[in-house]
Amino acid sequence: MTAAAVPAALPFDDIRRLVATLPPADAEAEGRVRAREGQLVKPPGALGRLEEIAAWLAAWTGRAPAQITRPLLAVFASDHGIAARGTSAYPPALTRSVIDVMAAGGAAASVLAQEAGAGLKIYDLAVGMPTPDICEADALDERGCVATMAYGMEVLAEGTDLLVLGEVGIGNTAVAAALACALFGGDAADWTGPGTGVTGAAFDAKVAAVRQAVTRIGGEADPLEILRRVGGREFAALAGAILAARLQRVPVILDGYAVCAAAAVLWKLNPQALDHCLAGHVSGEPGHRRLLAAIGQEPLLDLGMRLGEGTGGLLALQLVKAAAATHAGMATFEQAGIAV
Amino acid sequence: MTAAAVPAALPFDDIRRLVATLPPADAEAEGRVRAREGQLVKPPGALGRLEEIAAWLAAWTGRAPAQITRPLLAVFASDHGIAARGTSAYPPALTRSVIDVMAAGGAAASVLAQEAGAGLKIYDLAVGMPTPDICEADALDERGCVATMAYGMEVLAEGTDLLVLGEVGIGNTAVAAALACALFGGDAADWTGPGTGVTGAAFDAKVAAVRQAVTRIGGEADPLEILRRVGGREFAALAGAILAARLQRVPVILDGYAVCAAAAVLWKLNPQALDHCLAGHVSGEPGHRRLLAAIGQEPLLDLGMRLGEGTGGLLALQLVKAAAATHAGMATFEQAGIAV
Repeated sequence: MTAAAVPAALPFDDIRRLVATLPPADAEAEGRVRAREGQLVKPPGALGRLEEIAAWLAAWTGRAPAQITRPLLAVFASDHGIAARGTSAYPPALTRSVIDVMAAGGAAASVLAQEAGAGLKIYDLAVGMPTPDICEADALDERGCVATMAYGMEVLAEGTDLLVLGEVGIGNTAVAAALACALFGGDAADWTGPGTGVTGAAFDAKVAAVRQAVTRIGGEADPLEILRRVGGREFAALAGAILAARLQRVPVILDGYAVCAAAAVLWKLNPQALDHCLAGHVSGEPGHRRLLAAIGQEPLLDLGMRLGEGTGGLLALQLVKAAAATHAGMATFEQAGIAV
Repeated sequence: MTAAAVPAALPFDDIRRLVATLPPADAEAEGRVRAREGQLVKPPGALGRLEEIAAWLAAWTGRAPAQITRPLLAVFASDHGIAARGTSAYPPALTRSVIDVMAAGGAAASVLAQEAGAGLKIYDLAVGMPTPDICEADALDERGCVATMAYGMEVLAEGTDLLVLGEVGIGNTAVAAALACALFGGDAADWTGPGTGVTGAAFDAKVAAVRQAVTRIGGEADPLEILRRVGGREFAALAGAILAARLQRVPVILDGYAVCAAAAVLWKLNPQALDHCLAGHVSGEPGHRRLLAAIGQEPLLDLGMRLGEGTGGLLALQLVKAAAATHAGMATFEQAGIAV
């Protein structure tokens, strides 16, 4: 992330205005897909959730039927001061290693992106330069938070027609827990999970760190301030990407706990802000299920995954592509010469 | 299905002997996959169910890692006398129409097979010549049942390395309900669902028909006799295909209620008979969830689909392929030069 790549920062008030006046779904395109759905050679509703996905794609792309020709996994990576507390089972230096492996094709997300026919772009948000430990200080200032959101918005310049979001960042399930707890209340223990696999005393310390971060900003109710104060760079960039996708009519597949915590910031600003988003999966991280319920998202998959990177979102992408393909490719009763 | 295509029939006793002495999993191949899994660049267990699938593939193919190069959807189609009672929302003649559309590429299964890179083969089990109404008479005699099982076994001659099973047969959710009820007990209403979409008085009539069929064979405890008496041709062929796959080390992805009812016949003979099978999904047909629980299968997907054809199995195939690809394609920590 170079200074030259960062557009002029919008203040939080401009973000608030954007989120308050989001474009609605294209009801006409959605209606056309639903009408065609009823003509396809199957009982009404027999493709279950696939039918809803086909309608959702039309609603948020404005095309009926919607085609997915350039899906993209965008992975945002950053480091977190809180990781120095041992909240992860791995050392902070692993963030850099994972994105290097990912770029070289050897990470789970690299393989799954290829399987799903998706592009993969990794955004290095100053990996190696952690944001301040959120137990002690705010992660970002307003200017830095908005600049990072704006940087995330630039993913739309890639020309994708379906965006899958992922992240890498040692320590970021603790940050996700702090964000979720600050946004939705409850105790830190309700939102904290094993992440990469912390157990025992290390897990207790992770819960305590999350509690300390949330307590530090106690009473903070502004979602953008929560993002800035107990979030991190990938969370800001993810929120920016989700917002920009809505403005440019690109549907989004959410991944795990961290991606959904970023999305939840927008949901808190406007509960319709995620209508163009689909929860790809619910992870093995217990807070993720709770968070999905809080933001009213029904996950497509439930496979006990807890890797992040966009891996759950990429599996869901295959189902979304299948939904689009069946809707577009199936014969109608009339084409098949069947009178019903 | 021509007479020439049918191998010499085995009597039920030979089927029983086969099912009683099934080959076990390849623990050595499974162990090698589990060992490699622990070396891949991710926290242990972070790929959740995908890791279990990679191990399962090794266990039942005997190869580590297992590759899936020739997946095949085998669709068995037949007609049922019970359909004349109006147990389906569609006329019996639709069975023929659906397989014609499927062969022409316009059915959901045709599109999804292409999406998943699977071959598609349709087995016409005398479509248009319904088996007797199971409310009144046995569907098959022993010779016909075994011959149809043997015909189903021939699908393995296609040389596939992963078999996805599907079916088409107007009326066959009523038959599946009768099979499940006869195999596992309970009331016909517990096992009967809307199928293609029957409601109200038609649904009540469907429940009554299932109850009548099960009552007719009241007390029948032999799973193969149950298959013969209240089943149908696609159920016999599916059971044969599952059994042959086990003998030839080909893993199987099960689809919806009808496929699982056929599988349950084998499970009743030997609860290990389905260890090489994975439940691709749980359908919107309520009896399917109950049946999966009865045979100890945890479905991979839960998308409210209720079309049959193998559609849920084909979506699951994409996840199974993704599991195999990540296991084979991810870098190890050592390859990535990461000390952990």
